[in-house]
Amino acid sequence: MNQYLKHDEWSIVEEGFNPKNARASESLFSLGNGSMGQRANFEEKYSDSSLQGSYIAGVYYPDKTRVGWWKNGYPEYFAKVINSTNWIGINVVVDNEQLDLAVCKVDSFVRVLNMKEGYLERSFVAEMQSGIKVKVCAKRFLSMSSPELGVIQYSITPLNSNAKITLQPYLDGNVINEDSNYNEKFWVEVSKGLTSNGGYLITKTNKLDFEVGHGMVCNVSLDGKSIANVTNQDQSSNHVSCNYSSDVSSGKEFSITKYVAVISSLNSEKDNIRNAIQHSLDIALSKGYSTLLKEHIDAWADIWVHSDITVEGDVAAQQGIRFNIFQLSQTYTGKDERLNIGPKGFTGEKYGGSTYWDTEAYCLPFYMCTHGQKVARQLLIYRYKHLEKAIINAQKLGFTNGAALFPMVTMNGEECHNEWEITFEEIHRNGAIAFAIFNYIRYAGDTEYLANFGLEVLIAISRFWAQRFTYSESKGKYVMLGVTGPNEYENNVNNNWYTSTIACWCLEYTEQAIYLVKKNDPSRYNNIVESIYFNETSEIATWKVIRANVYLPYDEKRKVFLQQEGYMDKEQILVKDLEPSQRPINQKWSWDRILRSCFIKQADVLQGIYLFEDRFDIETIKNNFEFYESRTVHESSLSPCVHSILAAKIGKIDQAYSLYLRTARLDLDDYNKEVHEGLHITSMAGTWMSIVEGFGGMRIQNDMLIFNPSIPKGWKSFSFKIWFRENLIKVKVAHEEIIIINEQGPSLDVKVWDKPLCVNSSSLIKI
Amino acid sequence: MNQYLKHDEWSIVEEGFNPKNARASESLFSLGNGSMGQRANFEEKYSDSSLQGSYIAGVYYPDKTRVGWWKNGYPEYFAKVINSTNWIGINVVVDNEQLDLAVCKVDSFVRVLNMKEGYLERSFVAEMQSGIKVKVCAKRFLSMSSPELGVIQYSITPLNSNAKITLQPYLDGNVINEDSNYNEKFWVEVSKGLTSNGGYLITKTNKLDFEVGHGMVCNVSLDGKSIANVTNQDQSSNHVSCNYSSDVSSGKEFSITKYVAVISSLNSEKDNIRNAIQHSLDIALSKGYSTLLKEHIDAWADIWVHSDITVEGDVAAQQGIRFNIFQLSQTYTGKDERLNIGPKGFTGEKYGGSTYWDTEAYCLPFYMCTHGQKVARQLLIYRYKHLEKAIINAQKLGFTNGAALFPMVTMNGEECHNEWEITFEEIHRNGAIAFAIFNYIRYAGDTEYLANFGLEVLIAISRFWAQRFTYSESKGKYVMLGVTGPNEYENNVNNNWYTSTIACWCLEYTEQAIYLVKKNDPSRYNNIVESIYFNETSEIATWKVIRANVYLPYDEKRKVFLQQEGYMDKEQILVKDLEPSQRPINQKWSWDRILRSCFIKQADVLQGIYLFEDRFDIETIKNNFEFYESRTVHESSLSPCVHSILAAKIGKIDQAYSLYLRTARLDLDDYNKEVHEGLHITSMAGTWMSIVEGFGGMRIQNDMLIFNPSIPKGWKSFSFKIWFRENLIKVKVAHEEIIIINEQGPSLDVKVWDKPLCVNSSSLIKI
Repeated sequence: MNQYLKHDEWSIVEEGFNPKNARASESLFSLGNGSMGQRANFEEKYSDSSLQGSYIAGVYYPDKTRVGWWKNGYPEYFAKVINSTNWIGINVVVDNEQLDLAVCKVDSFVRVLNMKEGYLERSFVAEMQSGIKVKVCAKRFLSMSSPELGVIQYSITPLNSNAKITLQPYLDGNVINEDSNYNEKFWVEVSKGLTSNGGYLITKTNKLDFEVGHGMVCNVSLDGKSIANVTNQDQSSNHVSCNYSSDVSSGKEFSITKYVAVISSLNSEKDNIRNAIQHSLDIALSKGYSTLLKEHIDAWADIWVHSDITVEGDVAAQQGIRFNIFQLSQTYTGKDERLNIGPKGFTGEKYGGSTYWDTEAYCLPFYMCTHGQKVARQLLIYRYKHLEKAIINAQKLGFTNGAALFPMVTMNGEECHNEWEITFEEIHRNGAIAFAIFNYIRYAGDTEYLANFGLEVLIAISRFWAQRFTYSESKGKYVMLGVTGPNEYENNVNNNWYTSTIACWCLEYTEQAIYLVKKNDPSRYNNIVESIYFNETSEIATWKVIRANVYLPYDEKRKVFLQQEGYMDKEQILVKDLEPSQRPINQKWSWDRILRSCFIKQADVLQGIYLFEDRFDIETIKNNFEFYESRTVHESSLSPCVHSILAAKIGKIDQAYSLYLRTARLDLDDYNKEVHEGLHITSMAGTWMSIVEGFGGMRIQNDMLIFNPSIPKGWKSFSFKIWFRENLIKVKVAHEEIIIINEQGPSLDVKVWDKPLCVNSSSLIKI
Repeated sequence: MNQYLKHDEWSIVEEGFNPKNARASESLFSLGNGSMGQRANFEEKYSDSSLQGSYIAGVYYPDKTRVGWWKNGYPEYFAKVINSTNWIGINVVVDNEQLDLAVCKVDSFVRVLNMKEGYLERSFVAEMQSGIKVKVCAKRFLSMSSPELGVIQYSITPLNSNAKITLQPYLDGNVINEDSNYNEKFWVEVSKGLTSNGGYLITKTNKLDFEVGHGMVCNVSLDGKSIANVTNQDQSSNHVSCNYSSDVSSGKEFSITKYVAVISSLNSEKDNIRNAIQHSLDIALSKGYSTLLKEHIDAWADIWVHSDITVEGDVAAQQGIRFNIFQLSQTYTGKDERLNIGPKGFTGEKYGGSTYWDTEAYCLPFYMCTHGQKVARQLLIYRYKHLEKAIINAQKLGFTNGAALFPMVTMNGEECHNEWEITFEEIHRNGAIAFAIFNYIRYAGDTEYLANFGLEVLIAISRFWAQRFTYSESKGKYVMLGVTGPNEYENNVNNNWYTSTIACWCLEYTEQAIYLVKKNDPSRYNNIVESIYFNETSEIATWKVIRANVYLPYDEKRKVFLQQEGYMDKEQILVKDLEPSQRPINQKWSWDRILRSCFIKQADVLQGIYLFEDRFDIETIKNNFEFYESRTVHESSLSPCVHSILAAKIGKIDQAYSLYLRTARLDLDDYNKEVHEGLHITSMAGTWMSIVEGFGGMRIQNDMLIFNPSIPKGWKSFSFKIWFRENLIKVKVAHEEIIIINEQGPSLDVKVWDKPLCVNSSSLIKI
């Protein structure tokens, strides 16, 4: 852990400058707006260690697969998110000396991420090597209302002397990825040019020919008075810049506003990018800084009004959940069905910016409840559109009859990861995709989706499972050989309980879905049957036989489901007995040692119990929770939230609370010593779940919202809002009362602690 | 399979030119001399598909590890063998048209690898696009007597017209590896220059600074008369060449002899490479072509007199074994203790030219019996010198107390492969290294080796195994979790029978070795105990407990050892029921399908039974052979030889014979459709074993040679020779008689079919 940030309800605050935390802060103070993202790199030069990151949604690079020994079935390429044109850059020169926080003395450094209004502010006093002290203030935002726009306001004031100061805003396409395979540049220049007080740069990816254009226009003022013209302009390969120089008297402020428009070929014809940039900048200039900022703040206000969670009496917990909601909301807006949510969002290179099962298993509930059902549907449609590619992927692996295996990692529906134990074996993702359909429909009541989109996906997934089980003569059961479960600290195991359980559930739910669609929309059903050559009788019969005879490992003595066959052969050590110096084990131990140990990255048995909670009695949940929680190191960001929810379920509120802090403040307090690489965006949706489903005890049962709330003892109250079908419901839980407000929509039947209630339009009910 | 070569007892013969076979022939006709190797690329230009390969022993490149997700414990680099300066090149221009077999019409193409005398010959008639026909003859060898020398004789005769012909011998360092990670060049020029009738080029590897110098000098003659001077010379970056042009009358032969000296920084001070080249070329020129060739042929005669195996009555079988012996002998000569035997020798890029367990498990017996015990000892010393690095490697993986894990793949004692299932889990290599010590000592009687070198290695290996077993509470046994056995079509399995068996054997043999050294050389023993902090009492006690309680999976019903726990859960299909179109499965199936299937790359249970044969009754061997042979696809080159030996052991001579052909002609007939990548050098020693130990039934028991011969019914006889301690013994087996000749050394007690015999010096005994 590394706790250097101040606790604050609405802001992330760093006071004082410590280069050791520079990369961590670059991640933590990242900004995004669904269309692009920017790590909190400094505008001015910084010559110490830094991970430069500016990412454009949907733009990636297909890096060539290079492995020791080629395995048949590997994709030719793996997709990676690429660092694109540096558009925030403003070089600052004070009397011929370049401002660089790695070189000068830094004082009064404060950095604030204002989550309520969505901007980043930074100020400091720097003492140059010449002895001149300057005060710098910088503020920037990526507009939520005009998603192609980024705006920076940057000012510098000499404090103890007059100085000649040059501000040099630039656009620089000579950027690389830190994880680059070839130390190659991914971008080539398409065109560039200078304009009055600005310039533009259009670059193209080496492969796939994505084009991204950046344009800037600057306003500069001295002591509040506008300086009309640029002093000098420059362009070189993949680079344009403007120079603004002025003699600045001590105490006078020299400031610049840099408006940047970013247009990619995903959103514009290539030959129109230049015009689109100009158009956007013209509007920006005409509106001006204050108006743009106000529109941006208003857009954030709209987001918060539906998604905010309050926690009274615990600033760290309050800050944690808002940070999570803020990051989720600036990563994905649901406006573009081609986009999805990468595990690190726009905050780092790792995980390639691609889509994982995280979307379905973690993110869907958050967006569904706070951003609305349309956004959730958008996420499902993303996979529906990839069904054909998933069928081709399964064929490549030897499956037939229209079986589908969705990719573990994808940008466009094609698998783009190439480690066999992940690519070929982490097949539980198929289960998460099916579950998301079920989850969406039970929540939104959108059975039309099932007929028109969902059923085809479900059948293709069930066809995969039916072939993926193997009948074991020796066990007289169906076994699932060679899989990697969500607990990636085991690879290539047999009979992973979670995978086999969700596979069986898929077979069962698909059968139900078939009967439902057949009944409700027989002609659509017949169309499906014909188009995919579905043999209802024989295929369903096979599924039934498999479901009834699946081998699920169980430990009779301890009354727990076994993560996989053979798990009890491991040396059984508990996490509490692990030397702290050995953690995180993924940084301290070799991979084979991790694989052989009993330690769990995320407990997939608990993941399965969480998903199918109704099937297990409370004693079973308790046994499994105690067994697995004590062996789980939570080195997957996706882990603590599920444990927190189950802990709340079984009444272990203190433990639920500490697990909540672990998920909510995972990055803020850097539990796993890796925040410098980027934030854990997708697991932030798990934080949301751990309040709403954990402490809030929210479930859907038989089309009805139910709540079984509990509250950590240090909290005075907590509240959240959810969209449920036509209703916007606010729930506030305190120690002595539960308040449910129907803020929008018709009257709604809910249950609280098994007590039915009818919440009328705009009514407020206390319990 | 692809059978396009003529059967011949002493030669490999290709008649007719088929570009489809070009890469395969480049592998099959490779030459080497222990110091360097050269694929059978053409001297003249060839613009069609070709794998250029010229390799220098001990020179490699540490290619940077690039993986999807980094695993702790991975080496930073993996070593690869690199294609070095093209020294065979001779461009041929006929009336301004370049000779290129991919372009012209080719007739009367014959290529012959003369294995008895160690040279490659090629001749053909080419019709140029101009209509001119030329006859070309080329012959080359890599000198076995002067291992820095390669010599080429190349002649061209216009057949139907006079022509202006230019021969342009060159040295070209602008070469790449086909498997290059970066498409980078590995070599940079150090220096180059031209001499009268020649030139030199010294290049250096980008990393590790290996330097390799090539020098050439040429004699050119027209119609048998020497042409004094070069017409023209040229040098460009990393390239030197000479031009010899002449008007050649129809029917006259224009010929060149190109002498090339290759000196690397492994064998010369860097600043002396230039001189060493010149010195070597001066000697070569003064000796001349005929003398050099004679010395080379004599050196081969010396090799053959001790290593030849004859098979009467079966040309394909005879050719196969000689091809195997020839390739082994030109790959490794035992003269340099820094060198070892890569799985592909000098014939391709794959497997990086590095050392694998193949050396100990397969190659050692061949070199020990045919090249002498000193060569075998050299191979053991190679590992002894790497013991410290093996201990560091084990520490990196979390092992303590001086435990050693030797690398799976190495150039210099450091692990240089980075796939976790191989690097971290294929730990059986430790067992093979221990077994090689045992095997060498039982064969050579060199107990001094045990005290001075072997014991330290054995204790370090046993310390590894003692920590690598895990006590399973649930089984009440010691289990071995997370290993990959020799059957690499299973990864990360528990309780691989072979690995656990050889681990137990190591613990047992180390204990015996300790007592032996303690008795024979107590002061040396005490030194060892002190230097490695060996606690004899407690460590041996631990080993005994483990050995007595190891879990070895066994199938009661079928009476077979189980390859690993859970093997019987797989769908049990036999290889005979596999569609031929599905083979080799490693080219047709995705990796996960292979892993889930019951099919076996090489049957490691049989490997274990082969190593510890005395521990199993014949019924057990039969049961296991039948069970595993029927499930083995032999897609490891190391597989069929062991099966052949066991088949002979249990009296299945027909099956032993067909398995013998599979190992002996694996590359010649391209059973596994991969000979274009290079030859399977290390498994060729298995071919040798399948005759000597298989049909010859040779074993060592209680310091005595024993033979239990059998003979395939199509053979008239077979014979082999072995060095055994001071004796050179020849064994000839026919259907009616067995002849044992003691060619050298004192009288020797042996057993044939359990009958004791004393073979006197130079005596001949018939049975």
